[in-house]
Amino acid sequence: MDGSKNANRRNLSACIERKDQKIGGKEMIIIMKPTATEKEIQTVIERANDNGLEVQVNTGSAQVVLGLIGDTRSVQDVAFKSYDGVEDAVRITNTYKLTSREFHPDDTVVDVDGVKIGDGSFVTMAGPCSIEGLDQIRICAEMAKKGGAKILRGGAFKPRTSPYAFQGLGEEGLKQIRQAADEYDMKVITEVMDEGHIDMVAAYSDIIQIGARNMQNFKLLSAVGKTGKPIGLKRGISGTISEWLNAAEYIAVEGKSPIIFIERGIRTYETATRNTFDLSAVPIIKKFSHFPIIVDPSHGTGVWDLVGPMARAGVASGADGMIVEIHPDPKNAWSDGPQSLNEKTYVQMMKEVEILVDAMKKIRQLETI
Amino acid sequence: MDGSKNANRRNLSACIERKDQKIGGKEMIIIMKPTATEKEIQTVIERANDNGLEVQVNTGSAQVVLGLIGDTRSVQDVAFKSYDGVEDAVRITNTYKLTSREFHPDDTVVDVDGVKIGDGSFVTMAGPCSIEGLDQIRICAEMAKKGGAKILRGGAFKPRTSPYAFQGLGEEGLKQIRQAADEYDMKVITEVMDEGHIDMVAAYSDIIQIGARNMQNFKLLSAVGKTGKPIGLKRGISGTISEWLNAAEYIAVEGKSPIIFIERGIRTYETATRNTFDLSAVPIIKKFSHFPIIVDPSHGTGVWDLVGPMARAGVASGADGMIVEIHPDPKNAWSDGPQSLNEKTYVQMMKEVEILVDAMKKIRQLETI
Amino acid sequence: MDGSKNANRRNLSACIERKDQKIGGKEMIIIMKPTATEKEIQTVIERANDNGLEVQVNTGSAQVVLGLIGDTRSVQDVAFKSYDGVEDAVRITNTYKLTSREFHPDDTVVDVDGVKIGDGSFVTMAGPCSIEGLDQIRICAEMAKKGGAKILRGGAFKPRTSPYAFQGLGEEGLKQIRQAADEYDMKVITEVMDEGHIDMVAAYSDIIQIGARNMQNFKLLSAVGKTGKPIGLKRGISGTISEWLNAAEYIAVEGKSPIIFIERGIRTYETATRNTFDLSAVPIIKKFSHFPIIVDPSHGTGVWDLVGPMARAGVASGADGMIVEIHPDPKNAWSDGPQSLNEKTYVQMMKEVEILVDAMKKIRQLETI
Amino acid sequence: MDGSKNANRRNLSACIERKDQKIGGKEMIIIMKPTATEKEIQTVIERANDNGLEVQVNTGSAQVVLGLIGDTRSVQDVAFKSYDGVEDAVRITNTYKLTSREFHPDDTVVDVDGVKIGDGSFVTMAGPCSIEGLDQIRICAEMAKKGGAKILRGGAFKPRTSPYAFQGLGEEGLKQIRQAADEYDMKVITEVMDEGHIDMVAAYSDIIQIGARNMQNFKLLSAVGKTGKPIGLKRGISGTISEWLNAAEYIAVEGKSPIIFIERGIRTYETATRNTFDLSAVPIIKKFSHFPIIVDPSHGTGVWDLVGPMARAGVASGADGMIVEIHPDPKNAWSDGPQSLNEKTYVQMMKEVEILVDAMKKIRQLETI
Repeated sequence: MDGSKNANRRNLSACIERKDQKIGGKEMIIIMKPTATEKEIQTVIERANDNGLEVQVNTGSAQVVLGLIGDTRSVQDVAFKSYDGVEDAVRITNTYKLTSREFHPDDTVVDVDGVKIGDGSFVTMAGPCSIEGLDQIRICAEMAKKGGAKILRGGAFKPRTSPYAFQGLGEEGLKQIRQAADEYDMKVITEVMDEGHIDMVAAYSDIIQIGARNMQNFKLLSAVGKTGKPIGLKRGISGTISEWLNAAEYIAVEGKSPIIFIERGIRTYETATRNTFDLSAVPIIKKFSHFPIIVDPSHGTGVWDLVGPMARAGVASGADGMIVEIHPDPKNAWSDGPQSLNEKTYVQMMKEVEILVDAMKKIRQLETI
Repeated sequence: MDGSKNANRRNLSACIERKDQKIGGKEMIIIMKPTATEKEIQTVIERANDNGLEVQVNTGSAQVVLGLIGDTRSVQDVAFKSYDGVEDAVRITNTYKLTSREFHPDDTVVDVDGVKIGDGSFVTMAGPCSIEGLDQIRICAEMAKKGGAKILRGGAFKPRTSPYAFQGLGEEGLKQIRQAADEYDMKVITEVMDEGHIDMVAAYSDIIQIGARNMQNFKLLSAVGKTGKPIGLKRGISGTISEWLNAAEYIAVEGKSPIIFIERGIRTYETATRNTFDLSAVPIIKKFSHFPIIVDPSHGTGVWDLVGPMARAGVASGADGMIVEIHPDPKNAWSDGPQSLNEKTYVQMMKEVEILVDAMKKIRQLETI
Repeated sequence: MDGSKNANRRNLSACIERKDQKIGGKEMIIIMKPTATEKEIQTVIERANDNGLEVQVNTGSAQVVLGLIGDTRSVQDVAFKSYDGVEDAVRITNTYKLTSREFHPDDTVVDVDGVKIGDGSFVTMAGPCSIEGLDQIRICAEMAKKGGAKILRGGAFKPRTSPYAFQGLGEEGLKQIRQAADEYDMKVITEVMDEGHIDMVAAYSDIIQIGARNMQNFKLLSAVGKTGKPIGLKRGISGTISEWLNAAEYIAVEGKSPIIFIERGIRTYETATRNTFDLSAVPIIKKFSHFPIIVDPSHGTGVWDLVGPMARAGVASGADGMIVEIHPDPKNAWSDGPQSLNEKTYVQMMKEVEILVDAMKKIRQLETI
Repeated sequence: MDGSKNANRRNLSACIERKDQKIGGKEMIIIMKPTATEKEIQTVIERANDNGLEVQVNTGSAQVVLGLIGDTRSVQDVAFKSYDGVEDAVRITNTYKLTSREFHPDDTVVDVDGVKIGDGSFVTMAGPCSIEGLDQIRICAEMAKKGGAKILRGGAFKPRTSPYAFQGLGEEGLKQIRQAADEYDMKVITEVMDEGHIDMVAAYSDIIQIGARNMQNFKLLSAVGKTGKPIGLKRGISGTISEWLNAAEYIAVEGKSPIIFIERGIRTYETATRNTFDLSAVPIIKKFSHFPIIVDPSHGTGVWDLVGPMARAGVASGADGMIVEIHPDPKNAWSDGPQSLNEKTYVQMMKEVEILVDAMKKIRQLETI
């Protein structure tokens, strides 16, 4: 059985791989020596361009890494390794490349208009599930700020299972969250579900969120990748980590927008929680990608009194931040009330998180010894 | 635990429900008496319109059923039941309505340019995963026809996990599948993934397919619902049956396109098959909806020698048809080779299916006795 | 990611495999030529015994196959293939062997005191979830017989999630089901959960059932394997097919009891059904093992009006039989009422099943042409 | 759909509940006033005994709570609430009772021969997957102790998917782990799989472990519950939290052995990890039960470099300890090598864990303010 199962899996991937070779081939990464000159780098780029390949240049802290995109079969015989200034040329067996840790060994720090994500700090994004009006989002911004959040969350376009459910306030909501965030000197993260709304959402927000249902809406991924805004990419409802990394690649390949992964729980048989919060995703993403990852304990559990413990666990797992749902009056929230924190429970959680963030700093110092 | 879990679930749905009541309210269905006159029906419609509600009219074999869409709170006090010609007025507790069996007690038969789906026959759609060129799709059409398929499948736009994988031939592929189908007097089903391509895809195909990854791409659902073409709606990779019915409602609410549900397996822990083929979905969909359902044993199993047995099981479960992947040379297919049937195995399967289709006719006669 | 995932999987299996080599090694199967003499067979057996290996002899319809159990490293250099009468010597990479189709290419037909399972017929086992008393089990036997079932099911020991729930009537129940079955000339299948009860259960039943929760209760598997009674082995609640085959091997290795696999649905995220009925397991088990497999549409769905359609699908998938729950008054059953058929729905289902069994006979004749 | 799904669930639980009422009824808990006298308590106990009920007495820090076991229908009319010294009498709707937080509002601290689990400290159990010999287990004990573990783990009886895999050293292994633990002043936790081995395992160990495959081996649960030793109860491979609490009840109802829950990951579709580590289980178990819970990041992830981050997350989630696999030479471990830490990675993890344990102490002080 195992034998046959593995054989079957091999066949499946063989099939895809063979196809890829026919059309595109495995991608190639050229790692330049730390001492490589600008001219040596340029020579490699020109050689690749001559072979019809596009080149993405990644200037790391120590050395330059070049990503070759296109049909790299044409350069299989080219001895890039023998070029001056080239340390190594490796073919990537992953189906993602620009997202991979190999391509970019250093952590990518995402700069959200001054707020840094991925630099070792722990950034909190807080706010209501849905923007319900200017008063509500203002109160939420005040609450969020009081607890220490730097980024305000809130949905103006809501993906709803039923077409008859509340679909969000639309542009009016976007204006309200922008105004509330500005009043409290916060940044804005909000979701876009429709390619036609991207410009509008980009105009009002600092991070564009792709929701779980759209993790493999490839057209939308490519489109938001052109905005240059940081993209908060939620894991799909039953997305594998491999699919998630490949989804990020659809954004990364556009070459403009950095990515923030958001773990929000996966669909399993367990009904005690809304989703099963898969915190192992944090160290796995950090191992395979250079982009930061934050956690969403609200959707990850679906139950307000589990949010605090799982936020703490998120910090300790090594996440770069979190996104949580708060509401001044959860019982009367228009959506997601059962998983929203009120002011008291939110502020309590943030105090606990702060203690753990300090502990994690000590742990990171351990590591560097 | 159970107590609290249920309480939690109740809270979740209570939250959504309360919100719905605030914004829209539960929907209402008015069942007219078989003897109701046109005028009586018109009076009810006008009364609903006066209250700001849109009305969808369903003319069944025995009686007219009206679906009231909008904020039905305004008509809570209106005694529709006392109107002449009204048999009953019921509020729907489902979040879907036009898709529900209550709204349309008879089976809906989808007419695909002369080929009927849902009328008790068993319709086969066959073809390659990807359109690879005119020659290939022609050979596939010949094979498909030979086995008895009436509809030709084939992808011109392929959703691929990796941005570097083959994405399909695009419009060129659409032209090729249309030409091949016409030569063999077949109909065409093909997938659309991008709202911007809907008109193009509709121009070349008879059924528009929504793929598993897009089951909850609500924007795309609404857009295809406006075409008037039958929509083949695949179940999401981890879609619940309830979510699937609600996704159909996004199409149905546009009022133009009939729906064909396509069961294609769900994501589970089992790795012996690509997906776990959930045939129970067939009688469940038939219980809760009036639209037909077909099965996809190719994606449902992912292994070619399981396709035949599962196609047979699909017939016996009561499905209205199936969609299968065939290829003249599966080992060299550009995608999904391991789950594709070659001519010999496909023709063998179709003979077996025919025997079971006959058996199911006998069984349906039993039922009517 | 994929690369690393596969590497990780390889490591896991490498680890187990290396360990197995240290302790036991891969198992070996010697396939004798159809023309091999008794003496030639004996020579091979003695040679294996000399190397400290136990030998299981399987006398197939065409040829003898020998299974070598123990540390086969010692015979790695022995050229069994060069022995007279030996057709081939193969090392099994599966972790199961006696259960495998390679070891026993013909179908094993299980003889339940005259009732054959696995010979191309379709055998029905029917009865209540729990034995509730002599009257109830007698009525059930009468119902079961009326519909055409040859084997009576019913639990005297019930595995219950809570220690306070009804645990079954024990030996009293066993006596009652035996008496009822005898009165209606039926055989008995009933579950054993406790090693200490095996002799008692064996005394009253014709097939001993291992429940889903005990699929990997290895001690119990070994113990029932010593009884010589046919064992009905239910798939675990979240058992993989590979684990299930290996669980069967624990029974098979005792060398006495034939096995009947019972597919009863697996645990997934879907809540519309009690379990997700995985009918693909039928052709997979038939591919990898020679033992028969039956299906349990009652537990597979958990909803009475899905049982009929899924029983039909089970026949069409190629199963050798089924086990279903019936009750004279499901609403007042002590357990599993919602998934039990009453007399009318059960008899209707059996008529439908009969039509499909006839159809499958025609299909099998097709195959042999 | 949702309506029908819930109706179906209601039916299922209604069925079980009705049955329970027939046989046993809902259980009852009598909460005595803090001021209740011994005589008042005795009166209640006698009244319950007179009605054929067994009484479990729980002497909490503030007040006595009585659990009534048996057919409490007989006392439905008895006005326990009116008895002197009685604060409240509540029927438990959970199917577990002695395990519930309602029955025992204070945390239960499990005393493992002087090592306290559940008192706010964080206890580490470390050791190899399998005991491979005295030298190996001694080296492991030394490593474990060096990192700060107080309890030595190691398997002498191994549940293995295949009957041909290494099954453990048996009693010889038990002697070795006991000797190694004594040399390093540690306690022993080891698994029992077979009722017949319980006395033997109890003789050598301080905590008896029930493995994931046996979570619902009800006979084994009852049997270990009679030993009086603390029981480490692993969550089943796909066990729900509700089933897990009920499994604990099978032990608790024997009235002798305290329970330590062990979260070890659940089976999901994700293959990047061996299991999906469900840390939300920690605060849920603490909410619904008074018994301590520890985490197993080794099985929870299956990958050694994820063990450290998930151990940290476990501390932060509020767990009372952890159990981890270590090995002097993981590459050559007889089992579970890929998930085992070597000395360097284990000691590093323990330093990190210590920093987080200190942080959690600060957090607990916050809570008490």
